[in-house]
Amino acid sequence: MGKPVKSAVNISDDEIRASLEKGQIRLLDERGIDVMLFSPMASAMGHHFGNALVSRYWTEVNNDLIHRVCRLYPARFVGVCSLPQSAGVSPGECVEELERCVNEFGFVGCNLNPDPSGGYWTGPPLGDEWWYPLYAKLQQLDVPAMIHASATCNPAFHTTGSHYLNTDATAFFQLMESRVFRDFPKLRIVMPHGGGNVPYQAARYRALCIMNKWEPFDDFIKRIYFDTTVYNQDAMELLIKVVGVDNIVFASEMLGGVNTTDPATGKSFDDNGRFIDAISWLTDQDRSKIFEGNARKAYPRLDVALARV
Amino acid sequence: MGKPVKSAVNISDDEIRASLEKGQIRLLDERGIDVMLFSPMASAMGHHFGNALVSRYWTEVNNDLIHRVCRLYPARFVGVCSLPQSAGVSPGECVEELERCVNEFGFVGCNLNPDPSGGYWTGPPLGDEWWYPLYAKLQQLDVPAMIHASATCNPAFHTTGSHYLNTDATAFFQLMESRVFRDFPKLRIVMPHGGGNVPYQAARYRALCIMNKWEPFDDFIKRIYFDTTVYNQDAMELLIKVVGVDNIVFASEMLGGVNTTDPATGKSFDDNGRFIDAISWLTDQDRSKIFEGNARKAYPRLDVALARV
Repeated sequence: MGKPVKSAVNISDDEIRASLEKGQIRLLDERGIDVMLFSPMASAMGHHFGNALVSRYWTEVNNDLIHRVCRLYPARFVGVCSLPQSAGVSPGECVEELERCVNEFGFVGCNLNPDPSGGYWTGPPLGDEWWYPLYAKLQQLDVPAMIHASATCNPAFHTTGSHYLNTDATAFFQLMESRVFRDFPKLRIVMPHGGGNVPYQAARYRALCIMNKWEPFDDFIKRIYFDTTVYNQDAMELLIKVVGVDNIVFASEMLGGVNTTDPATGKSFDDNGRFIDAISWLTDQDRSKIFEGNARKAYPRLDVALARV
Repeated sequence: MGKPVKSAVNISDDEIRASLEKGQIRLLDERGIDVMLFSPMASAMGHHFGNALVSRYWTEVNNDLIHRVCRLYPARFVGVCSLPQSAGVSPGECVEELERCVNEFGFVGCNLNPDPSGGYWTGPPLGDEWWYPLYAKLQQLDVPAMIHASATCNPAFHTTGSHYLNTDATAFFQLMESRVFRDFPKLRIVMPHGGGNVPYQAARYRALCIMNKWEPFDDFIKRIYFDTTVYNQDAMELLIKVVGVDNIVFASEMLGGVNTTDPATGKSFDDNGRFIDAISWLTDQDRSKIFEGNARKAYPRLDVALARV
């Protein structure tokens, strides 16, 4: 642990192809999805594990592997990197790896873990200037950060249950009570899991913005993109209603935290495009934004990456 | 701090009356509410503050004051106590104060803080036997615990925003992955804030129960009561739909975290009975359960307390 060594990853291209053909590519085809943004598995980012050098080597190896995937299937996968975060280490230390992935590999975004301690929340909140060197680089490169936790080592939390969803709500609130978007007006942020609790608790957030004289909630929420990884009809409708059709980016977890069949429908929980199809008050233009247009807006380099194909 | 002294609280009955007549009693009358369960203010429980003896004295003083309120207005207020919790101290140490409040004062329930560290989550989860002496006493006395955080001293969280709501979701998940209800089948638990994120993220919880072979989500959720402190129509409908009319207990925060007017409606955010009135698919019997019957079921000693009036 103290003296990590970085060596070659012994996975052949054929092994990568075999894994993807029976996994993500099969599901993309089944569900009519053209392109997937592919990032290292969030729960395995493991920023709390070892030290900053362990995190750096592990992150580089993972981003390299994502790059190999994207080169093998340039029409299906576009890369998003993880960052070599480590508890107590300046986020400025991640800038070099972000630049490598964007400039050398053509990646279009990154994952940003607001709690690299893994559930102990020992670091400064996202509104603190501690994070500003990273925000400056994100804005300069014009790539978004998806806010996403990794696994928790705190027994109070469950990784893909309470920890992920709490992290979404916590990060949203940290940004809402901060001046981050005044200091970085072009910073792009994407929230996973349909925003954790934000659409359901919108009235509370709205009231707290009024009571604290913050930017009105209905203006603030437009600064952020929300993905659609909620898995029933009612939640999907609430999400789109609260956030609005211009800030919703289609996503499902392939393969992720809800990788099983819903006995009520006989379909996989994460086969969630059908919930969007079923919303009667969406127009074809709305659906086009949710399934494609908003992703191109949130990830401006996506157009460039796809034009290369 | 190291040598706390407990002395008399210099608040006269007239001062108590003056505060309540222009506060809670005015609002109860305006909103047609007969009886309110009155507990010490959650954000001021302050279990992270000082040491166990500070927490004990402060909790006793607060519970004594609640008891005075209930004696002054026995037809309007029924007492719910806070507990002298302290980070790292066994919950068994709270049993004596719980018994005092229930047996001597006629209180009908308590607040239970799953994170007495105030946002650092340093203690064992609610599924740990660490909590069992308290659960045994709650079950024996037949009084429910409302799960509720106090203020956070961790800058990652906002007390009435992310910390309260995260705590609801965290506690729900800790219980869901535990054997607490197998070991204490008659334990009564109430969740505030409409369950934090639970109704919105129900499909994720449902999937995780299947993947982990836990009790099915739709059975587990019936073991817990949820209050109605969500503040718009869509959230209220989602809450009641997911939890079911038999497990919903009417509540609003009077006066609490959302103490302001909604500019969209001109009404106070926490005047939330109207959302229940407006749900077309509820019957009169359903509304009767939500506004009264379920509270009598969740708090069995409420009947006794009100019969004394």
